[in-house]
Amino acid sequence: MKKLINKPEDVVLEELKGIEKAHPDLVKIHYAPDYIIRADAPVKGKVALISGGGSGHEPMHGGFVGMGMLDAACPGAVFTSPTPDQMLEATKAVDGGAGVLHIVKNYTGDVMNFQMAADMAKEEGIDVEAVVVDDDVAVKDSLWTAGRRGVGLTVLMEKLVGAAAEEKRPLKEIANLARKINGQGRSMGMALTSCTTPSAGKPTFDLPEDEMEIGVGIHGEPGRTRTKLQTADQITETLMKAIVDDLPFMSGDKVLLFVNGMGGTPLIELYIVYRKAVEIAEKAGLKVVRNLIGPYITSLEMAGTSITLLKMDDDLIKLWDAPVKTAGMRWGI
Amino acid sequence: MKKLINKPEDVVLEELKGIEKAHPDLVKIHYAPDYIIRADAPVKGKVALISGGGSGHEPMHGGFVGMGMLDAACPGAVFTSPTPDQMLEATKAVDGGAGVLHIVKNYTGDVMNFQMAADMAKEEGIDVEAVVVDDDVAVKDSLWTAGRRGVGLTVLMEKLVGAAAEEKRPLKEIANLARKINGQGRSMGMALTSCTTPSAGKPTFDLPEDEMEIGVGIHGEPGRTRTKLQTADQITETLMKAIVDDLPFMSGDKVLLFVNGMGGTPLIELYIVYRKAVEIAEKAGLKVVRNLIGPYITSLEMAGTSITLLKMDDDLIKLWDAPVKTAGMRWGI
Repeated sequence: MKKLINKPEDVVLEELKGIEKAHPDLVKIHYAPDYIIRADAPVKGKVALISGGGSGHEPMHGGFVGMGMLDAACPGAVFTSPTPDQMLEATKAVDGGAGVLHIVKNYTGDVMNFQMAADMAKEEGIDVEAVVVDDDVAVKDSLWTAGRRGVGLTVLMEKLVGAAAEEKRPLKEIANLARKINGQGRSMGMALTSCTTPSAGKPTFDLPEDEMEIGVGIHGEPGRTRTKLQTADQITETLMKAIVDDLPFMSGDKVLLFVNGMGGTPLIELYIVYRKAVEIAEKAGLKVVRNLIGPYITSLEMAGTSITLLKMDDDLIKLWDAPVKTAGMRWGI
Repeated sequence: MKKLINKPEDVVLEELKGIEKAHPDLVKIHYAPDYIIRADAPVKGKVALISGGGSGHEPMHGGFVGMGMLDAACPGAVFTSPTPDQMLEATKAVDGGAGVLHIVKNYTGDVMNFQMAADMAKEEGIDVEAVVVDDDVAVKDSLWTAGRRGVGLTVLMEKLVGAAAEEKRPLKEIANLARKINGQGRSMGMALTSCTTPSAGKPTFDLPEDEMEIGVGIHGEPGRTRTKLQTADQITETLMKAIVDDLPFMSGDKVLLFVNGMGGTPLIELYIVYRKAVEIAEKAGLKVVRNLIGPYITSLEMAGTSITLLKMDDDLIKLWDAPVKTAGMRWGI
């Protein structure tokens, strides 16, 4: 295992120490239970947004805490759900009196633990809503998931709903907006290589030198098919077809096109994929009105990409363009 | 070779097509000769900044074209210098009447070609200055370089000098500022793995599973030592000691600390390195007043990191904080 780490069991703690040293203007770190929280939390009168999940997907979620996105993120161990006490304490710490939205990727542990935290927070008088993200069209059920997995759309949802919260929209409206976004976004990914969690010390799965996994999950869960290597254009065709057919996206739709890097794939390759994805989208009559290209929801050093398409409208475009100031996504401020 | 590409010879062209589709608000692409240019170039009365070099280091340099940074970037083939005609045509295209600064990383091909382009541009009546960046303390001479190599400091210089150009400072002053930055910044990198150029199809160098290269160059050039794997803290100690001793940085100095990812190293590990680097800097009496953490000058999918320290003053801090709007670095706007 080749990693820039010290002891495997200290990876998340030492990452948090680094974030604390790097971004005191943006975030504070709470230890035991661990969570990353906006420097100015709680923001009075604003719905607070919390997400969380296993570590190893950086910048998601900790890198998205700040003005215009999340109020807190709860990091679990690498590829492991955070615990209910992290979520509960974060919920209490960010509540500014307008309630809290939990953004939960659809993995069994995450869903169960966020549910427990929400129940406990409600008992303490905090208004909590939850939205479950399940945008991955690759497989129906998966390792660790009943139903579809939550992947790239989570990044877009955190930005869009974060902007709506800054406008002081009420909790019910924010929760409905999040559900609407989940309903009109779809993703699929693929891997050229596996990744290695620090605690395991060996690759999560085996992938021969001439093969790739289409439809892979962000923890290396199996996808739809294991095939021989193909060109970037062929891979992009496969991902785009699965995504466009699923909603289905219709000619005339405005969309946001997100080409995500899984961690080990260089930016130069993501632009090659983006080039083809736009061409396919335009051929289908879709109008790509916004885009995002880069490693935003990663799987440690896995090489590969995922594509997310989200149907946009004027409100979503306005929310996308609104200022955001986090370590992992920043514009307008 | 596992890459998201089509034909190896089309990699840079297809990347440029992707950038053109993705960022029409920021840049225009000129083909044959290839260069990336600010959408609003030439900017009248502003000194124009050009850099360039081999592709494969993205987002540098093409991702740094836009308001507050570069006016143009000339991409060569992967790890190969661009040609004088690219640089000359870009120079003519961006000149807004106030002259052009060439920011040149110290590699023999880049220096020679930029020199030829500058000579030709001057013959056409354009005022051109050049600064050569040679911040890498690892080795005295190297493959492709007489003297020290230009590495991470280039990113910081493009941001700082870009901000000074937006203030409409004159060419001589801009060039002197760039030389001052080069004089007070130092870097060193290391690799856990090699990388593979698309045209070669096999790793640039061999690095056994239990070894790493300290002082590696951004094209995989040999560094100071090949050693057994060490912890992140030991590696960070080695890099920081070499950098701090070289200038030397002195107790009381204000510094910008830049922890760069080589491409294949996940962000979670960069924060672990940053945590230790800050601790070492503070122990040496340095005051870390600004930072940058992420993959900004990469070597395709190489795993590893480089650290850059730049001595700051009030003018440099103001220039660092000034708005920038590029695909690869953005804040304040």
